[in-house]
Amino acid sequence: MQNVDWSPDGPAVVLLDQRALPGETSWLTLRTVDEVVDAIRSLAVRGAPSLGIAGAYGAALACALDVPEQADRVASARPTAVPLALGVRRVMTRVDDGPEAVLAEAHAVAREAVVVNARATERAADLLQELHPGPLRALTLCNTGDLACGPGGSALGALLRLHERGALAEVLACETRPLLQGSRLTVWELAAAGAPHRLCVDSAGPAAIASGLVDAVLVGADRIAANGDTANKIGTYSLACAAARSGVPFLVVAPEETIDPTTPSGADIVVEERDGDEVRTLGGVLTTVAGTPVYNPAFDVTPADLITAIVTEKQAWRPA
Amino acid sequence: MQNVDWSPDGPAVVLLDQRALPGETSWLTLRTVDEVVDAIRSLAVRGAPSLGIAGAYGAALACALDVPEQADRVASARPTAVPLALGVRRVMTRVDDGPEAVLAEAHAVAREAVVVNARATERAADLLQELHPGPLRALTLCNTGDLACGPGGSALGALLRLHERGALAEVLACETRPLLQGSRLTVWELAAAGAPHRLCVDSAGPAAIASGLVDAVLVGADRIAANGDTANKIGTYSLACAAARSGVPFLVVAPEETIDPTTPSGADIVVEERDGDEVRTLGGVLTTVAGTPVYNPAFDVTPADLITAIVTEKQAWRPA
Repeated sequence: MQNVDWSPDGPAVVLLDQRALPGETSWLTLRTVDEVVDAIRSLAVRGAPSLGIAGAYGAALACALDVPEQADRVASARPTAVPLALGVRRVMTRVDDGPEAVLAEAHAVAREAVVVNARATERAADLLQELHPGPLRALTLCNTGDLACGPGGSALGALLRLHERGALAEVLACETRPLLQGSRLTVWELAAAGAPHRLCVDSAGPAAIASGLVDAVLVGADRIAANGDTANKIGTYSLACAAARSGVPFLVVAPEETIDPTTPSGADIVVEERDGDEVRTLGGVLTTVAGTPVYNPAFDVTPADLITAIVTEKQAWRPA
Repeated sequence: MQNVDWSPDGPAVVLLDQRALPGETSWLTLRTVDEVVDAIRSLAVRGAPSLGIAGAYGAALACALDVPEQADRVASARPTAVPLALGVRRVMTRVDDGPEAVLAEAHAVAREAVVVNARATERAADLLQELHPGPLRALTLCNTGDLACGPGGSALGALLRLHERGALAEVLACETRPLLQGSRLTVWELAAAGAPHRLCVDSAGPAAIASGLVDAVLVGADRIAANGDTANKIGTYSLACAAARSGVPFLVVAPEETIDPTTPSGADIVVEERDGDEVRTLGGVLTTVAGTPVYNPAFDVTPADLITAIVTEKQAWRPA
């Protein structure tokens, strides 16, 4: 499944609308830069590596529409994930060769993601089997499968590689409030793969670790600082604290490009704060007092010393 | 406000239906033991100290209906909170003196809770001002105000005492999935008191602590083991781990009776696991793949070494 692609009836970007899953499988055809920016901001497409592909095709669309200067708007539609701006920047190096060259580069971005994902997830699966030789009970947060990364996934992909090897006992998936990427997307991908799983509220993750129900925690990453501090979905830090206390391995699986040499440490990472309605409502229904002020950071930063390994297509880096 | 009471048109227990808040303020009149048990199981009344009062009146109802043996069903309607069974047991010591004597004892339970709450919350507020002399930014989970405890509250009550003293900068309230006692009840009580507050998803609590936004964490308790290990709403442990790592005080505020000398440590505490639909749905709407298996513990256990102090009407106990 390639959930972000170029339309055969282009110029347009087509993508599977992740907001509608798992209830509905609907595809969006984005014909303007505004539509691409809106799809990224509203999380119709999300997941750092998928944002890289969306950024690449979004920039290709800007060029095809003869408004290449608008590619910058795609790059800055969300601030935290590294691959989004990188994807745009890479394809725009071909802008002088014309829109077809930019599009060819975007196709290369999408193609290479598949290779990167395969290498990173196989490496992470190998490391997991080394750390825990028996069937693994894993805990994960948010969604880090094909939807988030393109075919192969990252953290969830590694768990599915284990499942293919007959070495996965269970995935405990945190629901991932406010937008429930765990309940909606990860559970959907696990069910589709026939992999054993249970769903829990996010705050039950640390308790599950303390209760001895978890052999390893696996997450993705939106931005990894040069020192290994890792920005990822809000809640990642809570799992890392609990894993460290219980001596449970905590792995980050992500493309090497997520490591940003220009960001020295976690203190330098910009964390996106999103609209309060994401917390005040669920499925459009108000769940608190109307107008309640909200603190809604989309990500948190896990310090390198809590991370057992950061696994990419190139290395298993132990920053601690 | 006395949210659990004896009906003036008895024999019946009346209580404010906490499931309907904040949208609706509706009172239930419970005329049978079945109705009392159902109200407790379905969380129409919740909060360990309020369960003690509900248990006392529920047993008084069983006696008034001439089925005193059914008081046991009230006591065991939920397993984790200490006060529920204690409230029943206490009033049933008067069973030989007739239903009126049992009811008089239930009124005494409700009356004494007000005194206990006032003492514990003033003591906790004093301790907070000692630990952090400036205006306090506090983080809390679940609901520990009047609704949970009867007038005065426990952890949230202590924060409202600080607000009355002009010493509260902000309460960051975790929404408390799956049943959103934070969004629905704590925010409602904070708004009613005019106390400054913001709402966040549960997994943002640990991140807020790490980001320096929190001067103290306050929670209630359902059962405190003899060694200080504390069972409380799922998510408490995640906040305690993060608070310990950041050196932020972590306070438990609860009636002394919550400390159970017959439970040596946290390992001996029975944690209720509730129905998976609480996690699979929100407001009755399915948010994941139908039939997804769920891990849904209602509580977790925070080890004593992560707790700065357990504050009751009698003491500020530092178990670590």
